[in-house]
Amino acid sequence: MPGDFRLLDGTVRHVGEPAAVVVADSDGAAVEAAVILEVDYEPLTAVLDVDQARLEDAPQIHQGTEGNLAGRLRRSDGDVEAALAGSEVVLAHRFVTSRQKQAQLEPTCCVVEPRRDGGVTVWTPHQAPHRARRTLARMFGLGLNSVRVVNPLIGGAFGKGDGLTAEPYAVAAALVTRRPIKLRYSRHEDLVGTEARHPAVFDLTAGLDVEGRIIALRGRVTVDAGAYLSHTPRVLPVILTQLTATYRIPNVDLEVTALFTNTPVSGAFRGYGGPQAAFALEHLIDLGARAVNVDPLEARDRMRIRTGDSWGYSQRPIDTSGLEECLRLGAEAIGWSGHRTKELWPRPSDQTGIRRGVGMACVVWKSGIAGKAGAVDQSGATVVVNPDGSALVASAACDLGTGIKTTLAQICAEALGLPIESVRVTESDTDVTPYDSGAHASRSLYRAGQAVERAALEAKREILTYAADLLEADPGDLKFDGDRIVVRGAADRSAALFDVLERGFREGRRFEGVGTAPVENAPSFAAQFAEVEVDLQTGGVRVTRLVAAQDVGKAINPTIVEGQIQGAVHQGLGYALTEDLVIDPETGTVLNGSFMDYRVLTAADGPLVETIVVEQEDPTGPFGAKGAGEPSIILTAPAVANAILHATGASVRKLPMTPERVLAAIRGVKLGGEQAEPGALAGNGSGTI
Amino acid sequence: MPGDFRLLDGTVRHVGEPAAVVVADSDGAAVEAAVILEVDYEPLTAVLDVDQARLEDAPQIHQGTEGNLAGRLRRSDGDVEAALAGSEVVLAHRFVTSRQKQAQLEPTCCVVEPRRDGGVTVWTPHQAPHRARRTLARMFGLGLNSVRVVNPLIGGAFGKGDGLTAEPYAVAAALVTRRPIKLRYSRHEDLVGTEARHPAVFDLTAGLDVEGRIIALRGRVTVDAGAYLSHTPRVLPVILTQLTATYRIPNVDLEVTALFTNTPVSGAFRGYGGPQAAFALEHLIDLGARAVNVDPLEARDRMRIRTGDSWGYSQRPIDTSGLEECLRLGAEAIGWSGHRTKELWPRPSDQTGIRRGVGMACVVWKSGIAGKAGAVDQSGATVVVNPDGSALVASAACDLGTGIKTTLAQICAEALGLPIESVRVTESDTDVTPYDSGAHASRSLYRAGQAVERAALEAKREILTYAADLLEADPGDLKFDGDRIVVRGAADRSAALFDVLERGFREGRRFEGVGTAPVENAPSFAAQFAEVEVDLQTGGVRVTRLVAAQDVGKAINPTIVEGQIQGAVHQGLGYALTEDLVIDPETGTVLNGSFMDYRVLTAADGPLVETIVVEQEDPTGPFGAKGAGEPSIILTAPAVANAILHATGASVRKLPMTPERVLAAIRGVKLGGEQAEPGALAGNGSGTI
Repeated sequence: MPGDFRLLDGTVRHVGEPAAVVVADSDGAAVEAAVILEVDYEPLTAVLDVDQARLEDAPQIHQGTEGNLAGRLRRSDGDVEAALAGSEVVLAHRFVTSRQKQAQLEPTCCVVEPRRDGGVTVWTPHQAPHRARRTLARMFGLGLNSVRVVNPLIGGAFGKGDGLTAEPYAVAAALVTRRPIKLRYSRHEDLVGTEARHPAVFDLTAGLDVEGRIIALRGRVTVDAGAYLSHTPRVLPVILTQLTATYRIPNVDLEVTALFTNTPVSGAFRGYGGPQAAFALEHLIDLGARAVNVDPLEARDRMRIRTGDSWGYSQRPIDTSGLEECLRLGAEAIGWSGHRTKELWPRPSDQTGIRRGVGMACVVWKSGIAGKAGAVDQSGATVVVNPDGSALVASAACDLGTGIKTTLAQICAEALGLPIESVRVTESDTDVTPYDSGAHASRSLYRAGQAVERAALEAKREILTYAADLLEADPGDLKFDGDRIVVRGAADRSAALFDVLERGFREGRRFEGVGTAPVENAPSFAAQFAEVEVDLQTGGVRVTRLVAAQDVGKAINPTIVEGQIQGAVHQGLGYALTEDLVIDPETGTVLNGSFMDYRVLTAADGPLVETIVVEQEDPTGPFGAKGAGEPSIILTAPAVANAILHATGASVRKLPMTPERVLAAIRGVKLGGEQAEPGALAGNGSGTI
Repeated sequence: MPGDFRLLDGTVRHVGEPAAVVVADSDGAAVEAAVILEVDYEPLTAVLDVDQARLEDAPQIHQGTEGNLAGRLRRSDGDVEAALAGSEVVLAHRFVTSRQKQAQLEPTCCVVEPRRDGGVTVWTPHQAPHRARRTLARMFGLGLNSVRVVNPLIGGAFGKGDGLTAEPYAVAAALVTRRPIKLRYSRHEDLVGTEARHPAVFDLTAGLDVEGRIIALRGRVTVDAGAYLSHTPRVLPVILTQLTATYRIPNVDLEVTALFTNTPVSGAFRGYGGPQAAFALEHLIDLGARAVNVDPLEARDRMRIRTGDSWGYSQRPIDTSGLEECLRLGAEAIGWSGHRTKELWPRPSDQTGIRRGVGMACVVWKSGIAGKAGAVDQSGATVVVNPDGSALVASAACDLGTGIKTTLAQICAEALGLPIESVRVTESDTDVTPYDSGAHASRSLYRAGQAVERAALEAKREILTYAADLLEADPGDLKFDGDRIVVRGAADRSAALFDVLERGFREGRRFEGVGTAPVENAPSFAAQFAEVEVDLQTGGVRVTRLVAAQDVGKAINPTIVEGQIQGAVHQGLGYALTEDLVIDPETGTVLNGSFMDYRVLTAADGPLVETIVVEQEDPTGPFGAKGAGEPSIILTAPAVANAILHATGASVRKLPMTPERVLAAIRGVKLGGEQAEPGALAGNGSGTI
């Protein structure tokens, strides 16, 4: 496809893209050789932002594309023009999001061993080993069975490992040299040479009714794809969907366009389009609610989707929804009604001192991508019960630090009736495990859990069927009871589990189950509440409380769920306040390519995240569980923006919300042009900020 | 069980047994520390051969045993005393076999990685990774799923890898230090510290009829188990069985006794009791045939088992037998009838010059150990067909250099109708593969091949069932045709295989088959013919021709089969002429613990082995194949002994047949007592040597 990455094709399309690969016996020799190596660059005119990229005479970055178009999606429903004309108030705003980097602890690395049969084994912290295998096989013209991809322990990923980065270079070097290759990026190389969150510009026009509901939404969204296509074709529909997923908006006219630029590639990052869309939409909702003088929580409650509604990622109506509970419990925890009484609404007359405010946002999210046309969202698992009663789960679900292997062991143990110490989950290794679509889209627990539960239950049936022969009973009358298999209602007829298993083993029986996740997708829900203190003199924002309520269906491992939510919110807080890969507008160089300059928040930089776990069990999930990894990262930036709005009356519509931008918004100063768009269009109503 | 090995239990029972394990960061530091380490030995009285071991007042090597008894088996049938009394001739002889070492190229080694969950991953050239896992798990009190055993590439094994040697020490060190451990034996450590072929003493009395048939056989066999039990309980029945397996002997009275001694442990070695039994029995047959003046080939042909007979390793009668063909084709190839005409029988009147003779031996052997009471002989395999038409076979069959992975790939490719380049067979890895009993007893191709063929056919059925839906046809009407699936008799209705597979993948289908080897055991057959030149002055034996005929059922890979036979014969030739681990009778030290002193034959030391592959397809084998790895190693020593007998009239009944022993036999000199037993007992006939 035009825009697809091609290994060392002679053109360097962004600063940070490899121009050559140096292979050496030691780090030192490699560096020395790289220094000696002279590359003759023929400078090309660079396109460094989407505004340049869309110009008619812009240099074309890839052949075969229409201008620099990397993708475009449209969606319309109802009659937006008529609805806008009939609205109580119409708002039009531009929202600009940043180039956040995953900043996982472990820099990009991989090891490749060439095999004697011409294939390769690749150890990589990739988030989808089976998909990486498919891509590498195609890229190098190898059979799928000639590429083996194995996950070592992974030091964080957050989407960075959802695309190939170092792997193709290492595979190429291994195939050429016939030697094992280890490739490890420096932190700088990792920051400038791997994929980041898509920056996006949202021009949204909304018409609201008197109760604060959006009844019409027109949007033109421009996304910066960076230098190559990568995940852009799949991020665009998420942005499009999330603009209309959480609320019933009857009239929409939306277009999302992605353009190539000569900047680092935009790729997968926890939330995958969701944080961008939510920042724009959720802040717009608060601006609208303010205009019609409605509590923004009430406005959301009036228009949120409900059980029985169809939703973005599934053909099926919503079975269960914890959204109302998330809103209610979150509001109680933050003390919403006390904060948001009208008399406390800030009036920014005094330009000094500290102002306090609260804001919130909510979202419906998905559990994987099954149900989307053309999507491959698969999880398979096998469970083998050994003769000693221990069990081995083969699953390619990737543990990026999410603890998924522990939770899958719990699911297997529970389904089999064995202690969790008896269960081990294999490495994610394409030779060992059935296909699994990997760790993305909040899918691992929901999808791999479905597969493991089914596999474990099948293995259990195999055991009970065999035991039924021994005990001369009907398999349906048997049950596990500790380390024995007993006949219901006949206490004297039982067998030790180990005896049954060992006997079966000696007779050549294999107690194994294979499980496959069905084509299902459970909606998950979250609401987030932020309390901030804004220094009116400096524009500094201190987030004093963050309450994250999330409907996870069933918290199989409550500690892990809490950790997922806290981590997501904290990463969302970085998105809100500090994180952005800054590109030099002259040279295209990343200006903050180190952890000294790229500001990741430390634990001391935010409050202890208060989590509220809501459990509306989903009928399709393993023990009722839904996806849990992403919803909370989506909501932090808009909740903080809305709290700043509440505290100061100022709207900050560009991420990250640095003190300069907050101060400019407070003072109504136009800083760098980001608030230069018109504040509101004419409508039936009058409310604007 | 008394006599079982226990790790570092405070008693060293043979020279070469580890007394301590030193762990260090480098080879040098380990050697230095080992040199510094002082071990306080309290000397015990050693028992260095079975004659000492059986004395009533012999020191007892293990507690809980009856004297030094390591095992005893008896078998009797018919009335031996009466049959001996009615025999044409009765012979009684002692045969003594040696302590052959496997002398695989790769010295013993392994790597152990302790896992965070308390388990271990063990990389070892073990011949049965799944069995090693069971033993290690039990030894260290770990769950089966906490021990992962993986085969790296293996540099030869021949039985050396069929028991644990370095692994327990490395696992213990890894569990204690929580660090990865690499343990590598020197060649000396490998020769003196790992298991060797059981030395055995056969006292056999046979009664023959006038046609050279053995009608009565009495045997007292004493086997040296070495210092620990290891494989002895399973080698004893093989020796017992092989004394009566190949021929119809109506009256038998056999007892096989194993005794512990303070010598290196006797264990598994290609042939596993077969070479010892065949050396004694097959040489005895020639002595008997000579006594009754019958061609020993004719004598064998008269008493050999035939199709329909029951045999040692299976309850079922013999389905197919290539024994007659092996005998006939081998005899033709060596020119038997020309050599063995009576007038050419040597008369050892002239005591100088070169004498030429031919000899032969034959055997029925097994394909695994299935069918034996209590035996675990299992092979499972899975075959996954990938969306691109490549296939992955998961099998734990171990490739010791036998090429089994290639042959299994052929079986899978043939069963699926895919090119062999499309098939890869996994490593033998207990996490990846179903249980497989490993590489021993000539079982790998027969058993794993059964499993792979079944798995491939099941995967094919899965594909055809799915394709039948797409093509609106009956699965039974579909067939593979190159890279398409076609409907028989409807040339226009077909689909590209890749399209079917990719579509199925996208719909979540997994084309996988699981196969299990049934409880079957195919008899295999071999005959071997040797031509020798004996120097009457030096006793030197030059083997000028070796013809090995073997019924392999079906030679799926003829080059590999030929290599297996040639390698087996060459290793058998070492057993015949040079190989023996010599124990110092004073100190128990191995006197020839290096390849300078332990004489393995080079390619230049023997003739090019002439192979005759007979293919009597077995109905139970994969494509008719039977076990092929061992039969030919069993027959070389007796064929050479019989050729020496033919050439010189002298019987050499102690292995290896060194020039000293041959010369002593020729000169009728008693050398070291090994020909001190009476040559023959009284019988009806008179023939003795």
